[in-house]
Amino acid sequence: MKDITLIAATPQKLSTPNDLGEKARQAVPAAINPIVADAFALYVKTKNFHWHMSGSHYRDYHLLLDEQSDQIFAMIDVLAERVRKLGGLTIRSIDHIKSLQRIRDDNDAFVQPKDMLRRLMEDNKSFASSLRAAHKICDDNNDIATASLLENYVDETERRIWFLYETLSD
Amino acid sequence: MKDITLIAATPQKLSTPNDLGEKARQAVPAAINPIVADAFALYVKTKNFHWHMSGSHYRDYHLLLDEQSDQIFAMIDVLAERVRKLGGLTIRSIDHIKSLQRIRDDNDAFVQPKDMLRRLMEDNKSFASSLRAAHKICDDNNDIATASLLENYVDETERRIWFLYETLSD
Amino acid sequence: MKDITLIAATPQKLSTPNDLGEKARQAVPAAINPIVADAFALYVKTKNFHWHMSGSHYRDYHLLLDEQSDQIFAMIDVLAERVRKLGGLTIRSIDHIKSLQRIRDDNDAFVQPKDMLRRLMEDNKSFASSLRAAHKICDDNNDIATASLLENYVDETERRIWFLYETLSD
Amino acid sequence: MKDITLIAATPQKLSTPNDLGEKARQAVPAAINPIVADAFALYVKTKNFHWHMSGSHYRDYHLLLDEQSDQIFAMIDVLAERVRKLGGLTIRSIDHIKSLQRIRDDNDAFVQPKDMLRRLMEDNKSFASSLRAAHKICDDNNDIATASLLENYVDETERRIWFLYETLSD
Amino acid sequence: MKDITLIAATPQKLSTPNDLGEKARQAVPAAINPIVADAFALYVKTKNFHWHMSGSHYRDYHLLLDEQSDQIFAMIDVLAERVRKLGGLTIRSIDHIKSLQRIRDDNDAFVQPKDMLRRLMEDNKSFASSLRAAHKICDDNNDIATASLLENYVDETERRIWFLYETLSD
Amino acid sequence: MKDITLIAATPQKLSTPNDLGEKARQAVPAAINPIVADAFALYVKTKNFHWHMSGSHYRDYHLLLDEQSDQIFAMIDVLAERVRKLGGLTIRSIDHIKSLQRIRDDNDAFVQPKDMLRRLMEDNKSFASSLRAAHKICDDNNDIATASLLENYVDETERRIWFLYETLSD
Amino acid sequence: MKDITLIAATPQKLSTPNDLGEKARQAVPAAINPIVADAFALYVKTKNFHWHMSGSHYRDYHLLLDEQSDQIFAMIDVLAERVRKLGGLTIRSIDHIKSLQRIRDDNDAFVQPKDMLRRLMEDNKSFASSLRAAHKICDDNNDIATASLLENYVDETERRIWFLYETLSD
Amino acid sequence: MKDITLIAATPQKLSTPNDLGEKARQAVPAAINPIVADAFALYVKTKNFHWHMSGSHYRDYHLLLDEQSDQIFAMIDVLAERVRKLGGLTIRSIDHIKSLQRIRDDNDAFVQPKDMLRRLMEDNKSFASSLRAAHKICDDNNDIATASLLENYVDETERRIWFLYETLSD
Amino acid sequence: MKDITLIAATPQKLSTPNDLGEKARQAVPAAINPIVADAFALYVKTKNFHWHMSGSHYRDYHLLLDEQSDQIFAMIDVLAERVRKLGGLTIRSIDHIKSLQRIRDDNDAFVQPKDMLRRLMEDNKSFASSLRAAHKICDDNNDIATASLLENYVDETERRIWFLYETLSD
Amino acid sequence: MKDITLIAATPQKLSTPNDLGEKARQAVPAAINPIVADAFALYVKTKNFHWHMSGSHYRDYHLLLDEQSDQIFAMIDVLAERVRKLGGLTIRSIDHIKSLQRIRDDNDAFVQPKDMLRRLMEDNKSFASSLRAAHKICDDNNDIATASLLENYVDETERRIWFLYETLSD
Amino acid sequence: MKDITLIAATPQKLSTPNDLGEKARQAVPAAINPIVADAFALYVKTKNFHWHMSGSHYRDYHLLLDEQSDQIFAMIDVLAERVRKLGGLTIRSIDHIKSLQRIRDDNDAFVQPKDMLRRLMEDNKSFASSLRAAHKICDDNNDIATASLLENYVDETERRIWFLYETLSD
Amino acid sequence: MKDITLIAATPQKLSTPNDLGEKARQAVPAAINPIVADAFALYVKTKNFHWHMSGSHYRDYHLLLDEQSDQIFAMIDVLAERVRKLGGLTIRSIDHIKSLQRIRDDNDAFVQPKDMLRRLMEDNKSFASSLRAAHKICDDNNDIATASLLENYVDETERRIWFLYETLSD
Repeated sequence: MKDITLIAATPQKLSTPNDLGEKARQAVPAAINPIVADAFALYVKTKNFHWHMSGSHYRDYHLLLDEQSDQIFAMIDVLAERVRKLGGLTIRSIDHIKSLQRIRDDNDAFVQPKDMLRRLMEDNKSFASSLRAAHKICDDNNDIATASLLENYVDETERRIWFLYETLSD
Repeated sequence: MKDITLIAATPQKLSTPNDLGEKARQAVPAAINPIVADAFALYVKTKNFHWHMSGSHYRDYHLLLDEQSDQIFAMIDVLAERVRKLGGLTIRSIDHIKSLQRIRDDNDAFVQPKDMLRRLMEDNKSFASSLRAAHKICDDNNDIATASLLENYVDETERRIWFLYETLSD
Repeated sequence: MKDITLIAATPQKLSTPNDLGEKARQAVPAAINPIVADAFALYVKTKNFHWHMSGSHYRDYHLLLDEQSDQIFAMIDVLAERVRKLGGLTIRSIDHIKSLQRIRDDNDAFVQPKDMLRRLMEDNKSFASSLRAAHKICDDNNDIATASLLENYVDETERRIWFLYETLSD
Repeated sequence: MKDITLIAATPQKLSTPNDLGEKARQAVPAAINPIVADAFALYVKTKNFHWHMSGSHYRDYHLLLDEQSDQIFAMIDVLAERVRKLGGLTIRSIDHIKSLQRIRDDNDAFVQPKDMLRRLMEDNKSFASSLRAAHKICDDNNDIATASLLENYVDETERRIWFLYETLSD
Repeated sequence: MKDITLIAATPQKLSTPNDLGEKARQAVPAAINPIVADAFALYVKTKNFHWHMSGSHYRDYHLLLDEQSDQIFAMIDVLAERVRKLGGLTIRSIDHIKSLQRIRDDNDAFVQPKDMLRRLMEDNKSFASSLRAAHKICDDNNDIATASLLENYVDETERRIWFLYETLSD
Repeated sequence: MKDITLIAATPQKLSTPNDLGEKARQAVPAAINPIVADAFALYVKTKNFHWHMSGSHYRDYHLLLDEQSDQIFAMIDVLAERVRKLGGLTIRSIDHIKSLQRIRDDNDAFVQPKDMLRRLMEDNKSFASSLRAAHKICDDNNDIATASLLENYVDETERRIWFLYETLSD
Repeated sequence: MKDITLIAATPQKLSTPNDLGEKARQAVPAAINPIVADAFALYVKTKNFHWHMSGSHYRDYHLLLDEQSDQIFAMIDVLAERVRKLGGLTIRSIDHIKSLQRIRDDNDAFVQPKDMLRRLMEDNKSFASSLRAAHKICDDNNDIATASLLENYVDETERRIWFLYETLSD
Repeated sequence: MKDITLIAATPQKLSTPNDLGEKARQAVPAAINPIVADAFALYVKTKNFHWHMSGSHYRDYHLLLDEQSDQIFAMIDVLAERVRKLGGLTIRSIDHIKSLQRIRDDNDAFVQPKDMLRRLMEDNKSFASSLRAAHKICDDNNDIATASLLENYVDETERRIWFLYETLSD
Repeated sequence: MKDITLIAATPQKLSTPNDLGEKARQAVPAAINPIVADAFALYVKTKNFHWHMSGSHYRDYHLLLDEQSDQIFAMIDVLAERVRKLGGLTIRSIDHIKSLQRIRDDNDAFVQPKDMLRRLMEDNKSFASSLRAAHKICDDNNDIATASLLENYVDETERRIWFLYETLSD
Repeated sequence: MKDITLIAATPQKLSTPNDLGEKARQAVPAAINPIVADAFALYVKTKNFHWHMSGSHYRDYHLLLDEQSDQIFAMIDVLAERVRKLGGLTIRSIDHIKSLQRIRDDNDAFVQPKDMLRRLMEDNKSFASSLRAAHKICDDNNDIATASLLENYVDETERRIWFLYETLSD
Repeated sequence: MKDITLIAATPQKLSTPNDLGEKARQAVPAAINPIVADAFALYVKTKNFHWHMSGSHYRDYHLLLDEQSDQIFAMIDVLAERVRKLGGLTIRSIDHIKSLQRIRDDNDAFVQPKDMLRRLMEDNKSFASSLRAAHKICDDNNDIATASLLENYVDETERRIWFLYETLSD
Repeated sequence: MKDITLIAATPQKLSTPNDLGEKARQAVPAAINPIVADAFALYVKTKNFHWHMSGSHYRDYHLLLDEQSDQIFAMIDVLAERVRKLGGLTIRSIDHIKSLQRIRDDNDAFVQPKDMLRRLMEDNKSFASSLRAAHKICDDNNDIATASLLENYVDETERRIWFLYETLSD
């Protein structure tokens, strides 16, 4: 499935007016919607490991992943509304998420705790790169408001990476 | 894709001990996991309409769907953890949600506000039936704790239906 | 006056859809509306004694009845909305309350403090029976959400009885 | 039924002493008790329409009437206690409310939303007049404390009228 | 000792300017300062009985007097600052309080609980009269701000009388 | 420019009904709208000096003027809504404020701190007189709700005067 | 020692009236009092291990057991008061707890951290069974209020088991 | 009237030192002061429509404009203080606002609700452009702190536009 | 049973290092552990009477004992942790409490309210003496931290005695 | 007037039992009651200067004395209740305060701000000495609870001295 | 002593992975660590003057420096963790601070209040320059998250300068 | 560098008066200032390890050290102000801290987690001894207020030791 939000011409009634020009109106949603999809996917994956954690560090890692999932989840509404403020269309469904997400699903029946943390660290690393790339697009298109929000999300993602990395560094 | 959590034998390390017996351990997760998936799907759909709302009732319906989505979202962690307390496996990924969800995605480019509310009302009605069916399964399997939680969720779902129905009843 | 809400056929625009079937839609409101009326009547009666209390225990009993009236009042909106979620009609007026209430009014010019407590204890005892009877009806009609709420109200009513009984037990 | 609180001579044990004189002790309760009864009646009527609201403005009007009913309800205990502080007797029962209320009950099976608001606006207008008349009585009897409270209630009632009027002014 | 604040001419540096005229500047402080002194005296007396309470109602009356003393104490700063806003001088010392207070001290070694409540009821009654008299003076001098505050204090004082009276009415 | 709100006949759709009569409906808005304008002007002037304060008392006076400006600002919405509750029209624009304000602007490039406080003290003194005059108009027109609010604002204004006066009284 | 509360006939003054009948009044307290005793015993045991924890997971397990002990402790007052609301007698002393408790004491001088968690997991498992058995008794005796509370406690106990089990599952 | 803050040389005592150089000290205040003036003007205009709203969406739009006016108002102190931190002079008076404002006043006696929203949408659109232009000036002058604040204000303004646009899009 | 914590040599892993010397490490736990046991026993006894209270002062005494039991309970964790900070072992079980407690159990089927208060007053008096004796031991052993905590607990205990004594002093 | 609380033999009903012995029961109240009286006197004196402050530091010193008076006031109830817990009698009236106070009244018509601070500094210095002397008496009489409270009050008093001293040190 | 964190090669276990490249990983910590050291030094210096303040403005300046020190202190943990998120090493000890700090210590025995403020103003000015320089380095190295944080710290520092400057501008 | 605060004679303007005598004024600051310096050093060291933690217990130990550093930091202002209340001089600079600190810096490039905890445990042990020694000096000099504060800090330090010790005791 292609990206629904890009194929469909934005209906007149949803074209919030904006002084950034048509190019920005195309480019920013094209950069942000996959990040929203990734945030959903990473949220579910972090919760997956939060729910299926085991081992002597159980409570500690269970809480760590809960905090991280909360932080990821909080991005979704803010970024989706940014797209709408620019007059773009945004995420619509589970299927839409699936078609846009770049974070890979993980359906393994059992994952060792350290492997859980390692996989999430790798996902967060690629997520940080996506955020930085999207920031550049916003910057190039003079969308200073979205750019400013992404700066904070990069910091949070780097924090998640740091915690996961150090926990793995025995 | 089949239900990952049912195909895989539960690994020993995730088999939380429980006095409900093997039958309940099979039946309750088999009833609850699709509800968790539906809650995800209904959450995204409610947010979809929250984000793409338009018309003279914009703020009112935008807020209505925000409140309803918050309420739906709050069920997810509670029910998924119930499954884990019973020693079952639960939701793992976007793909897993997609394979279990019974609430249908809605990728229409533009939906009239009244149609949005009507579709959500229908979804919530079928969701209420699912919750009631699951409640019966918990009851039959003596899982009184899950049953008790579902009673509250039925009430909340009936509230969502009521609000949507009356708003449509011009 | 007969029960307005039962005589009148529910107008189409107020018929919130529900999967419990027509029998439940008749039976539950028929059981809950008199409880809402009783809650109003018991609320006013408890406030009556709260306002006209006297004697050396004045502050203590004044506060006791204030707490009890708050607890009773909190049931009203919740139960009336339950009726509406089921597609029934609910309480409309002082006259409607009067026609449905089973708690008897008390217009005595002066009541001894102990007699106040005794009368309220008796009212709460019959109210507890009404709640338990209504619970059975909900249960029989598979209305698990209303039933669950009533369980808590039975506990609160039994607490009111306990406090009143022990205060009287010199 | 006549006003119970006026027929009965106030029992000695409930005659809170006060320096306002016998005339005030008669006049102020005679003015305030019907306002307490009206507040009850208007409270139930506002809730009636809150519960049986319908139409595209459902949530907005449902919330509006909830806020208004809360505001009305908050007057009851304060004013009834004012009567008691003056050594008068106050509201005792549903029947007592019914005998004193001047706000008329409304048991119609279905009321159009606009009609609900119009009826409440008219009720609040006559309620504002009652409050202003009672204020004059308190003033004439030097009961500055009750008068001061009524000034605030007039403001709140005028606010309710304003909201209802403007909502009707299409 | 005479009233220090009236003997001394107000120093220039403390003569807050005001448009009420010289008569009001004399009359209102002359009415309010004794009320501040009475509030101090009544506060100490209420605490005296709070501290030396005894008997089977100990906790209940101990709390009652604590609440009443808090309410009395809260008047002091507000009223003293009113005097200063009018350009008058206000309370300066224990001795100054003693010279202005009309509430009588009570140094009895042991007072029966009921007698404590009775004495406080009488004190609050005379205090209510003082407040009402001061209100008239403010009114006559167009000091609407002080008058408005006193209306609330009359209500609180009448509430204290009510509680004390009913507690005594066995 | 004349007062826009008085020249224009109030449109039907904004004529909130009220039992005070036509005279009050004219007189009270005519008294209150200039006070709202003055509050805006005094707010900006107080902020002007808050922003351009200097000298060794910088922080203390900066905070003082901040508190005072907050207090002034809080009057605006309350009073403008009072006008609307009476069925009058109220403030519409910067130009409207300018045409009604009686507090004079102050655009001096540099003002000594003491001069700032002195000018504000004078402004608050004339503002207090305006409030008292408006109170009389409300009183004469039986608008007890507006009158009651003004009593509190007089107290606050007198407090601002007191603080400013004493700070200047070296 | 036998169960004091069952040997003694309930004194008249403590026989809170109830419509559940004599059988329920016997059966429910007989089921609930040992649970209260077990809750005390499990509370002390959980605190014992909380206080004598050691090893590299010290803080994590110390906090885990603190949270679990808080949760267990919160049941005690609620359940003991349920017994009293039904007119039964409840726990009186350390000795009474000792005579009714089924959770075994653990006075070992040193216990390995993993052994602490294992022992508590076993205790919580038997406690869950006791709760479920008591729930059945309440259900059979129509004591819907106690039953409803127990449903929540079963959920909490299953949560404690889950955390302990997964922490042990290396 | 010319811009007072630019004509007057900044007095020495108000020249907060800063390392951005003279050009920034001129350019940034010249860009920000008109935005502060616009914020005042837009605040009053939004309140104007908040106060004079009418029609069936009354409460909803009344609240919407209240939220939007609060958001606009919150910018004023922050931006004016930014100017002062850079050593510039800022807004002084109603007249000063009038001379700098670019948002046009609206003194129409009656405005249809939809027209109110449309006019505000247009104003917010031009305001967003002003903010973006000012951001560029800050950026060019290396004033990173002001720039960072403006990024957030652009987001809020785009949100206001979005809400107004969608409400108008029937 | 002897005191488990004293018989057993403290295991190496639980010997928190401390500069108070071996004598203090023996003496302080020997003084504090029985106080922890007494606190448990007094807690249960106070709750016993809280649960089985009766008579006209029911609510007042029920609340009094609830407050007192909360205060007693709050000591337990603090003191037990003090013992562990000194490297001692502390309370382990119900049996351990029973072996160390000096407050006597009270299993009487019915106790008159006044007798309840009298027994608790006596218990609190002996508890105050134990606390003072333990304080001396801490002082003699230079354990200033435990001593400081006990000073506060003596005050609380003396407050409990005061309330109980005065309530009994009719 | 002599100290009322010492002349009168403590009535039996107010003789809270205590294990400190008769000497402590005499000595501690004899030391603490004058401190309570001094706290009252110092409170009024600090408020006196708070109310009659003037000069360019007005707000700063007005707030300083407000904070200090709050701190002083908070001691009164705590220390008076300590006396009662020991079975002593405590403060009864304005006259009683006057007879015991050692802080001297100050009725001067006008006091320079610096003189106000200087006088309060001296008063606080002598108050600190009184507190330290009373601490010694408590210590000598083994009243560790009162002693512990006084340690905190000495710290607060020394803080007041520090602030006053440094403010005077130009 | 050289900068410990730059001399030492970052150990593998502390090398948090990051996509900014090796140059950024060197440059950003090299810019941020001295700012952390300066924040420590400026914090202690601001507290030094907070503690040793004197003169008639004592309380005002004491509070000013307390607020400023709190603001400075809040930067430390945030910036040190930024360094760690980038995989750099950060501050380790007092000695390390000393070797990196550029804010000079001030050990003078007595400093006049105005001199304290002047010295801090100069320090904050140089600190603002350091922050701006570090911001440029982050920007050049694409470290948008650190840059965003610094923008806020520049604003706070400019606020501190403004307050200090205006206080000095008599 | 010698201790700056002891070499310099205390300037007259900083000599807060105190009744403890010259010896105490010398002895207490000489004991407390090194403790303030140690608290700074231990704070930085604890943060050092908090920032450079690694390994599978990362989050748990990272949080532990954060809590411990917060607790240590909270002592600094309180103790430094104690010194000033006694008229002594206190900490001025990083260099001053360095000259007084007895806790040794730790600049190692990599420290194993367990070694971090061990080093901090040793530091806290010596810190506890310092606190106890300082307490004795305060006690000997009759400085009861400082002594009382130190008692609490000893408890907190012993808690830190306990947590660190048990975490190391595998």
